[in-house]
Amino acid sequence: MASDWADSGLDLHLELDPGRKTASLERALRAAIVDGRLAPGTRLPPSRALASDLGIARNSIAEVYARLVGEGVLEARVGSGTWVRELPPQPGGARVDRSTRFDLDLRGGLPDASGFARSAWVRAVGRALAEAPVDALGYGAPEGVAPLREALAGFLARARGVLVAADDVVVTHGFGELLGLVGRAIAARGGRRVAVEAYGHASHRDVLAAAGLEPVPIPVDRDGIIVERLAEASVDAVLVTPAHQFPTGAALSASRRSALAAWAADRGAVVIEDDYDGEFRFDGRAIGAFQALAPERTVYGGTASKALSPALGIGWGVVPSGLRDGVLDQRRLSGAASDALSQLALAALIADGGYDRAVRGARLRYRARRERLEARIALELPGARVTGLDAGLHCLLELPVHDTGGAANIEAAVERAATAIGLRYGGLASYAADAATAASRPPTMVVGYGAPPEHRFDQAIAAVIASINDARDEL
Amino acid sequence: MASDWADSGLDLHLELDPGRKTASLERALRAAIVDGRLAPGTRLPPSRALASDLGIARNSIAEVYARLVGEGVLEARVGSGTWVRELPPQPGGARVDRSTRFDLDLRGGLPDASGFARSAWVRAVGRALAEAPVDALGYGAPEGVAPLREALAGFLARARGVLVAADDVVVTHGFGELLGLVGRAIAARGGRRVAVEAYGHASHRDVLAAAGLEPVPIPVDRDGIIVERLAEASVDAVLVTPAHQFPTGAALSASRRSALAAWAADRGAVVIEDDYDGEFRFDGRAIGAFQALAPERTVYGGTASKALSPALGIGWGVVPSGLRDGVLDQRRLSGAASDALSQLALAALIADGGYDRAVRGARLRYRARRERLEARIALELPGARVTGLDAGLHCLLELPVHDTGGAANIEAAVERAATAIGLRYGGLASYAADAATAASRPPTMVVGYGAPPEHRFDQAIAAVIASINDARDEL
Repeated sequence: MASDWADSGLDLHLELDPGRKTASLERALRAAIVDGRLAPGTRLPPSRALASDLGIARNSIAEVYARLVGEGVLEARVGSGTWVRELPPQPGGARVDRSTRFDLDLRGGLPDASGFARSAWVRAVGRALAEAPVDALGYGAPEGVAPLREALAGFLARARGVLVAADDVVVTHGFGELLGLVGRAIAARGGRRVAVEAYGHASHRDVLAAAGLEPVPIPVDRDGIIVERLAEASVDAVLVTPAHQFPTGAALSASRRSALAAWAADRGAVVIEDDYDGEFRFDGRAIGAFQALAPERTVYGGTASKALSPALGIGWGVVPSGLRDGVLDQRRLSGAASDALSQLALAALIADGGYDRAVRGARLRYRARRERLEARIALELPGARVTGLDAGLHCLLELPVHDTGGAANIEAAVERAATAIGLRYGGLASYAADAATAASRPPTMVVGYGAPPEHRFDQAIAAVIASINDARDEL
Repeated sequence: MASDWADSGLDLHLELDPGRKTASLERALRAAIVDGRLAPGTRLPPSRALASDLGIARNSIAEVYARLVGEGVLEARVGSGTWVRELPPQPGGARVDRSTRFDLDLRGGLPDASGFARSAWVRAVGRALAEAPVDALGYGAPEGVAPLREALAGFLARARGVLVAADDVVVTHGFGELLGLVGRAIAARGGRRVAVEAYGHASHRDVLAAAGLEPVPIPVDRDGIIVERLAEASVDAVLVTPAHQFPTGAALSASRRSALAAWAADRGAVVIEDDYDGEFRFDGRAIGAFQALAPERTVYGGTASKALSPALGIGWGVVPSGLRDGVLDQRRLSGAASDALSQLALAALIADGGYDRAVRGARLRYRARRERLEARIALELPGARVTGLDAGLHCLLELPVHDTGGAANIEAAVERAATAIGLRYGGLASYAADAATAASRPPTMVVGYGAPPEHRFDQAIAAVIASINDARDEL
């Protein structure tokens, strides 16, 4: 459904989704403001006029306006309607009180703990406990409880295209534990080196090193990991993020996916696929798990931390038959107990559709946050650019290059300015596996928009902008 | 309160606890039957007479009689009252159907999953989630959540005499994970050998070996581990079960406790105290944790698996300051996530007294099971002897020695006979760290009376007796 605002004095074409008019209006307005089609100082049509034009309740229009006013994208002038905000970006002058301690964590990959549907979880625990046979409440098998493994097999096949039967699923205490178990299983059969993407979580590299494998960084570009470089690396395995490279935000291209599968088959190597946010693609172009291209060579890993909460401590792996015994041996040897109860609750939640609802709800929340972030950055940080796949819980914020220092220096200055106001986030350099990786690129901050509670999200964006403006002053 | 049954025609003195007359009557009757003061074929007083004699409601007497009839200790003869069962033990002829598949697990140390107060747990989860600040639901600290560490510090000081502040507590996925973390921390600082009790869980020895330490068995006797043998062993640490040696059932004597503390101080070694069932002493002579004698050298470990359920996967360690960073480093490197939610629920349960109630309830249930087991064994397996501290979830069952083979052979025959009827339990040899340990002692089965659901407990005892009788036939 489209609307031309000619009769409101505005020449603007908005494409609205007929099924979700209000939400798509909010998005369309933001997009039009960000790309300049609605210029600062433009007066929007009165909500009554727009309501009749679009066939949306006037209240809904008013709510959309109010939200955008709250975000600082629009402003309401008493007695004279709603306007695209005039306030020009002020380089060097962010509008936050310097004495504020934000105490916010915007590192990449942290989910929104405030969105966790607590009462749905309590009901799932209650249902699981009411139904669980006594046998299910003793010491659990190292691979996890059968009902969850069955439920996950169904969900992963459906939502992520994973080729999986319940027997292939191993439930762990998050993706991190899975990574450690797989690393130790590979080391136990003689593996010595594991390729990692040149940008990623330092904690993952540490877990692999502790497992006895040497992490070998492989460069990434806008198509993801550069697979041809794997051939020279002489490794036994590779840890990859094909759906959404962390943190650079690339999707592994189709040709690279094929090449990766071929490389793994040729070399007899293991691909460890960290599908940490594969459910959260916003542009409708989600691609399935890499695992389906090489199910016999791939360990697929995922987690309930993003759609539900890290407080559950539940992750899962789909482990190929050749590694299965090794992984389960390592789990036994780690001594860690399997907590059947949370697993049974998650199984109940998946079975009754609650988990799918949580995924959809989280996807909508993260998508809205991303849009708000992009809109504010476009308005208030001219020259900065939000990049990375339209997906997940984080994006890249490329800063204009100044002649005052290299990318890593500028990022470090922003990190210092952020720390000074109680904000925790890092530049790309802080995710680099080695110094060579960090060189020659624009200064880029990794902004996680998942973690702040909803009521503090606008403040979080303001804090990011303030930290960048402060760093600009310093340099 | 005492009663002489002279006016019932019975010369029997029963000591009853005035506060808990019914329960103590049940125990006293069982004891009198087991030790022969009430001989088979003796008629018990009518419930009406006994009720007025003891000042107990007639219904309560009838219930005690009915329970003992259910256990096979008494028998009810229609129209002529209640009698101590006449049926003599029949060597070689247990009274169970040979085609029965029991599907029961009576290995030492398994708790009663059917006793888990499910609804209390669901309420605790609900309360914890309702009260948790958003910050508590993100990725947790590797040491566990603060409210549980505080609650545990209070509980352990009060219930087990542990010298502990909240900062010393590390919450883990059961005792097994703690053992692996401590083992790796010791190995990381150069430790190479760890003493273990000559009888214990094979899985614990495996976890320590996987951590990079060589397990060195040290003999145990009726006073627990023989501490003087530690001096010759040249080890960096020792894993002990001072409150209730697993599975031989000894308590570490006072002089050995002092000697162990002195050895640890002299050698600069770490004592890992596995206090797996310290809360479950039945004879009122509970002694506190060893840790209080050497808090700077001892890692104290415990678990919620016995009083609540292994399905929670929660254990804890009290870690001395010198090992704390090493243990937390290993937890980070393991990659395993901390599941804050169950921890918050347990904290809520401890705070409102629910955990103490669960401990007391479990102690009463386990105590009653132990008494029923001892009574039936005394009646039906003459020559066999139940030994081990009057505590916990398991006991030893010493079998009469036959000239048909060594202890290990007889135990293996019982294990085979048990397997044939779907019963899983083992002899002492199956817990031995080495072959030398298994030699020269009477054949002895380790009987865990914790695991069977309440309604199958009598069947479980019958199955144990049947397996022994079957083995006797075989040999």
